[in-house]
Amino acid sequence: MDIDKYMNELGAAARSASRAVAASSTDVRNRALLAVRDALDSARDEVTEANAADLDRGREKGLDAPLLDRLELTPARIDAMLEGLIQVAALPDPVGSIADLRRMPSGIQVGRMRVPLGVIGIIYESRPNVTVEAASLCLKSGNSAILRGGSESLQSNTAIAACLQAGLRSVGLPPASVQVVATADRAAVGRLITMPEFVDVIIPRGGKGLIERISKDARVPVIKHLDGVCHVYIDDEADVDMAIGIAVNAKTQRYGTCNTMETLLVASSIADTILPPLAKAYAEAGVELRGCARARQTLPDIKSASQEDWGEEYLAPVLAVKVVSGIDEAMTHIETYGSQHTDAIVTRDHARAMRFLREVDSSSVIVNASTRFADGFEYGLGAEIGISTDKLHARGPVGLEGLTSEKFVVLGEGQLRT
Amino acid sequence: MDIDKYMNELGAAARSASRAVAASSTDVRNRALLAVRDALDSARDEVTEANAADLDRGREKGLDAPLLDRLELTPARIDAMLEGLIQVAALPDPVGSIADLRRMPSGIQVGRMRVPLGVIGIIYESRPNVTVEAASLCLKSGNSAILRGGSESLQSNTAIAACLQAGLRSVGLPPASVQVVATADRAAVGRLITMPEFVDVIIPRGGKGLIERISKDARVPVIKHLDGVCHVYIDDEADVDMAIGIAVNAKTQRYGTCNTMETLLVASSIADTILPPLAKAYAEAGVELRGCARARQTLPDIKSASQEDWGEEYLAPVLAVKVVSGIDEAMTHIETYGSQHTDAIVTRDHARAMRFLREVDSSSVIVNASTRFADGFEYGLGAEIGISTDKLHARGPVGLEGLTSEKFVVLGEGQLRT
Repeated sequence: MDIDKYMNELGAAARSASRAVAASSTDVRNRALLAVRDALDSARDEVTEANAADLDRGREKGLDAPLLDRLELTPARIDAMLEGLIQVAALPDPVGSIADLRRMPSGIQVGRMRVPLGVIGIIYESRPNVTVEAASLCLKSGNSAILRGGSESLQSNTAIAACLQAGLRSVGLPPASVQVVATADRAAVGRLITMPEFVDVIIPRGGKGLIERISKDARVPVIKHLDGVCHVYIDDEADVDMAIGIAVNAKTQRYGTCNTMETLLVASSIADTILPPLAKAYAEAGVELRGCARARQTLPDIKSASQEDWGEEYLAPVLAVKVVSGIDEAMTHIETYGSQHTDAIVTRDHARAMRFLREVDSSSVIVNASTRFADGFEYGLGAEIGISTDKLHARGPVGLEGLTSEKFVVLGEGQLRT
Repeated sequence: MDIDKYMNELGAAARSASRAVAASSTDVRNRALLAVRDALDSARDEVTEANAADLDRGREKGLDAPLLDRLELTPARIDAMLEGLIQVAALPDPVGSIADLRRMPSGIQVGRMRVPLGVIGIIYESRPNVTVEAASLCLKSGNSAILRGGSESLQSNTAIAACLQAGLRSVGLPPASVQVVATADRAAVGRLITMPEFVDVIIPRGGKGLIERISKDARVPVIKHLDGVCHVYIDDEADVDMAIGIAVNAKTQRYGTCNTMETLLVASSIADTILPPLAKAYAEAGVELRGCARARQTLPDIKSASQEDWGEEYLAPVLAVKVVSGIDEAMTHIETYGSQHTDAIVTRDHARAMRFLREVDSSSVIVNASTRFADGFEYGLGAEIGISTDKLHARGPVGLEGLTSEKFVVLGEGQLRT
């Protein structure tokens, strides 16, 4: 297979289809999503069979249990995919609204119209349910999509692609509105991220290594999600019970998520009050603590944190603990070791809360709540294609709006520039 | 001089200063701008002397007249720089506002706070007045800046930099909040665009070649302004007088600007009515027409357009003219040959006006007004650092808001995720 030729064909078809999708009505796109749902529902057997073949091959190749788990399409996961399509169809259409239309001194009216980005390339791991999720969000936001899932899920994705095509066709949208890359050859990714003539933005979903590699080689803008080294800072003026609740929830509600707290910062004046009950709660949850020298004065039994612990994204029941002199040292620590993802302060002091909000340069900055809230659904975005740790365009949880941009529109009555 | 070492020092200082600028009050930043104004006013003689030295060297090097003209700081240009600083100080502060703060089902309140980007690198040609303009917009929007002007303006920029430093110092902001690269070595640009640890975004201002080179080599996001191949489409249903007015204004009001019309598209049913009077007006203005075969049936005396004419940004009194069957062919032509900058339709038909607005994928789409309105000041942005032909982040004229982004802020009262 000539990969460059194949990807160029995919790209040209996606570019051409993107104009039809962008021009389609809200109703047509919603009906397409529901038609995909019905096609998927009718093809449960085919999809499950294809998935079983992927799982067999995965076992032969010796994939580990978590990978096989993510690859598997259980009946419950298929139900969730169907339900997701209905939910996305029900979301408001982000496309076409005109914001801030104002009359200027020249007499022209100027506003900003929300429009699709064009063609979105999504690169992800072997989780076939992501194929449906990504397709639905791109389609809803008026974009065409090229989807490239992990090679272990190729047969599952091919079966799902047939349902996507059927749904698109049934409402008269070009089948190339959503295309699944039908090759396991890694060269396809290399081409996908270097054809700005066909692709407007790349969204990689996966480990930090994958995303860094893609960002480095891409010739197209990339909406990145790197690591989440999230902090909770418990201020001198914190409500003790609230602080304990938040610090426990931010660490233990789930360990493997990017918005889980990885380092706890505690103001020194409150350390002796708050660390002993916290240590007890963490011990009960099975969380290992690694503390700075000052923290170990209060908690002599915990391990000593090394320099590496401060920048570590454990994604595990491990927590670094540092005692700081106050908000300034806390913010300096976050600036030095954080990943600008999500950071929280617990305090009753209004001025410090506002300083933290303004000065901490992270995609989500939180006062008196758990870092675990940094999520598109919790933020009311209705859906989430990912979380961006970039500063330009979308920052933080990315919903449908992040898959669009704004252009200027001008309404005149014959005005000339003088 | 060790350029890498020098640029790293500049970068680290800018990164460190950016935190102070971001945290500074609106009042401090405005006072800094006015202090720079006063310092520049007091240093008119020094700045003029430095500029005279740059001009002497430029003449020795054989720079052509337009380059020397742009390099020169006349008393009127210095006055304009002073006035510009006062105007920027008077603009509303884009930083710190919180949009769409809403209470979610969990009880948390979620909004988006507008924040500076951090460190902005600006690369421009030998126009020393741009140094003041770029510095003022970056500072106003709470960013620190590294400015790299053309090597021919080095002494002028160094003299201006002294005024910037004096103004910053007088209000207690770090002098590294705005730094001017003090070397003519081109390696400095190479380093500036490849240090994401110190620089958040690069804005190049200059010719297409420069911008393409920078975009290709940059390891930092670039806000690009490539070419402006702008169209006016005169629809069947156009008001003839309005169409002639707009078509003449869009071409002849200024020839060298990016929002000047370069190709005129005319619906075939109106071509015989509109082309003869238009051709007369263009002939009077000294504009050379290059037409398609159908246009030359109506205007047999004009030159024949070659394939290259359709994608050409003349920046000169030359205009390509094409007769099209209607709005569909017009939009296809714009998609094929345009540069997604600014395109206009003249029509009385509401449905076609709305289709053109929605479907033409350009940074500015205009109904019944001249393309020359695509400009930050005409759009009410108050200032313009450039025009973006990118789709992500800022699109079209970029004002202060384009130098900021939004982060999520969450206000809670102890909420935990369940």
